[in-house]
Amino acid sequence: MQISHIEHVGIAVTSLEEAIPFYERLLNTKCYKIEEVEEQHVRTGFLKIGEVKIELLEATSEESAIAKFIAKNGGRGGIQHIAFAVEDGLQAALDEVQANGDRVIDAAPRGGAEGLNIAFLHPKSTCGTLVELCENPNK
Amino acid sequence: MQISHIEHVGIAVTSLEEAIPFYERLLNTKCYKIEEVEEQHVRTGFLKIGEVKIELLEATSEESAIAKFIAKNGGRGGIQHIAFAVEDGLQAALDEVQANGDRVIDAAPRGGAEGLNIAFLHPKSTCGTLVELCENPNK
Repeated sequence: MQISHIEHVGIAVTSLEEAIPFYERLLNTKCYKIEEVEEQHVRTGFLKIGEVKIELLEATSEESAIAKFIAKNGGRGGIQHIAFAVEDGLQAALDEVQANGDRVIDAAPRGGAEGLNIAFLHPKSTCGTLVELCENPNK
Repeated sequence: MQISHIEHVGIAVTSLEEAIPFYERLLNTKCYKIEEVEEQHVRTGFLKIGEVKIELLEATSEESAIAKFIAKNGGRGGIQHIAFAVEDGLQAALDEVQANGDRVIDAAPRGGAEGLNIAFLHPKSTCGTLVELCENPNK
């Protein structure tokens, strides 16, 4: 498996309307896209700094993993996941992770924001952190 | 304030001995340094992927912010902070943040791991996320 860089850092927020101006001010760059991912019950806002995107995530339903993260975190936002860009095939990467004895949440890639194929590893195998792998199918 | 990139992502772990082999396997790169930062009661392990460092943080005392983060997180690790590299002066950046009406934890830079000058913003002003700014004084 060849990981080239951090594709994005996923930050849970209670309100995109509050979080976007803060990060725009801090990073001196504009949020370039707001996208709703219905399947995951989230609305996402993207900014880019260097080679990495900041994905701000707001829950659109109580079922959302983001709503659960914020509830567990005392009603506050925080960094929910880190996503690494796989350069040589996401399915092969997931197979390799499992061959190494590590567990995955998604045994096969599924669609995520920004047209990427994504899959999550299981926090039991990552020392607690929610780790996403992703690939750009148009590359 | 000019932020060029994410300097590092700080990941709290219960055991460096467990976390380092996982990240070495995942990222196909070696942990290049283990450093104890006494003032912060942590032992840190560093890996680099693309332009960003992964800073694995293990508490060395119950007083550590990392021990408190893990306790609040049900005894599990997770992503504790994100650090941005400031290119044009950390003190000026902290002054600018405060002039914008945002709060800081550190009004002046202090020493962090890897010889960097660091300062944390206040989670009340960052929508919950622990945000660090840092500069390399030798650059």
